[in-house]
Amino acid sequence: MLTKEELVIFFQNEFPQTNFIIESIGEKSVTIRKNINQEHLRPGGTVSGPVLMEMADLALYVAILSEIGLVAFAVTTNLNINFLRKPSSEKDIIAKCNLIKIGRTLIIGEVSMYSEGFIEPVAHAVGTYAIPITNKI
Amino acid sequence: MLTKEELVIFFQNEFPQTNFIIESIGEKSVTIRKNINQEHLRPGGTVSGPVLMEMADLALYVAILSEIGLVAFAVTTNLNINFLRKPSSEKDIIAKCNLIKIGRTLIIGEVSMYSEGFIEPVAHAVGTYAIPITNKI
Amino acid sequence: MLTKEELVIFFQNEFPQTNFIIESIGEKSVTIRKNINQEHLRPGGTVSGPVLMEMADLALYVAILSEIGLVAFAVTTNLNINFLRKPSSEKDIIAKCNLIKIGRTLIIGEVSMYSEGFIEPVAHAVGTYAIPITNKI
Amino acid sequence: MLTKEELVIFFQNEFPQTNFIIESIGEKSVTIRKNINQEHLRPGGTVSGPVLMEMADLALYVAILSEIGLVAFAVTTNLNINFLRKPSSEKDIIAKCNLIKIGRTLIIGEVSMYSEGFIEPVAHAVGTYAIPITNKI
Repeated sequence: MLTKEELVIFFQNEFPQTNFIIESIGEKSVTIRKNINQEHLRPGGTVSGPVLMEMADLALYVAILSEIGLVAFAVTTNLNINFLRKPSSEKDIIAKCNLIKIGRTLIIGEVSMYSEGFIEPVAHAVGTYAIPITNKI
Repeated sequence: MLTKEELVIFFQNEFPQTNFIIESIGEKSVTIRKNINQEHLRPGGTVSGPVLMEMADLALYVAILSEIGLVAFAVTTNLNINFLRKPSSEKDIIAKCNLIKIGRTLIIGEVSMYSEGFIEPVAHAVGTYAIPITNKI
Repeated sequence: MLTKEELVIFFQNEFPQTNFIIESIGEKSVTIRKNINQEHLRPGGTVSGPVLMEMADLALYVAILSEIGLVAFAVTTNLNINFLRKPSSEKDIIAKCNLIKIGRTLIIGEVSMYSEGFIEPVAHAVGTYAIPITNKI
Repeated sequence: MLTKEELVIFFQNEFPQTNFIIESIGEKSVTIRKNINQEHLRPGGTVSGPVLMEMADLALYVAILSEIGLVAFAVTTNLNINFLRKPSSEKDIIAKCNLIKIGRTLIIGEVSMYSEGFIEPVAHAVGTYAIPITNKI
């Protein structure tokens, strides 16, 4: 399992434009955060759907790299997201990911997303990443 | 919130052909069980996918009726299921459902399914039920 | 590509309890039919959701076997279904499947389901099957 | 049904930051385009997943507004996306949306996305929008 510091350096080098914070790394799980500002809002003063979709995808990616290491080039094959409540325009979004299957070729996880400080999630996603066979020696 | 006994009687009367056991009813959650026998298996000696899909749909339905009562005629609008591991052909299937959004017109829940006695789920589903507007006055 | 006759014999031998009719086999596509009777209905006089989920899964499976042959042991990994309209209790269900990706390890297809004779679908599904690596040499 | 010109003006006014082109409006269908440049790419030289998710969501939204008018405040409730092939980094992304259910409270559509000039889709999505009850009288 990778440390939080190793993951932070990887994302700084490889995805410098991706703007998020790794909060914590656990057993098959991660928590990430995104600072919300004007560019992430949509009319009506709420966080736009694509920002939440990107968060879900990122949380899965961080959890998978943490679990299998940085060598594998994992790609998303499926993402299913339900939007549950209107996120606050003034709070960060927190995404908590748990991996529910770590297979040889497929890794599946679920992600709950929250406006910081609220108990009920604003969105819930389940996603699948494929691990290319050629990466697995 | 309905009691387990009220739900058992409802399903005996309205869905007599549906063969499952309500194990427990909690806060926005239920656990149901299905006895697995030869008719539920597919070649290779495992529980067939449609049996798991039906369990997911049923667990959601029981959780929703428990929460909003028997009057509403709820219908599934979306079900997304991931098959994670091969279920045992010799164990009952246990489905645990948690409702993650109870709205006026849509109720969303997630379901984890297990071969009895195993820690890791065999399948995971997220489903949405619509509550007809005409039922809600 | 397998012929319709080869597929019919395969399902008679391997899945004798699965009750459906292969209507036609095309380029990356199949059409199947299920005769609807009392056992497939739910209260309210409509075809139950699990019957439609099973049809979606079957249509995908037939399309995949037709395309890659009977040797591979394909398993469903994900199925997402939307229920669109109340099916007729007096009409057969017709399921039309098109494969949209045939990869080395994953095959993805979509399925539209109809009450026979109607233009608008009663349900729409998208599903993914995994092809075990060990089967592919 | 709204004209393409009415929709273009609506998006310029309400979503000025959303950068896409409405190509054509049809019967329950639309085609939109996004110019791809450096900011939309991810390591490996391909269009990032969140760009495709945003395209799917947008194509659905345009199709829905075209069908029911600009008054309703529609919100995404579910989006399921499958990533099928690696998009070209040098081609625009074209998204074609067809609505498959236009109900009183839910509208469901599917979206196929392509790198311009290619026949096979790079991604396929199915999404549901909810139409608030209060908007419909």
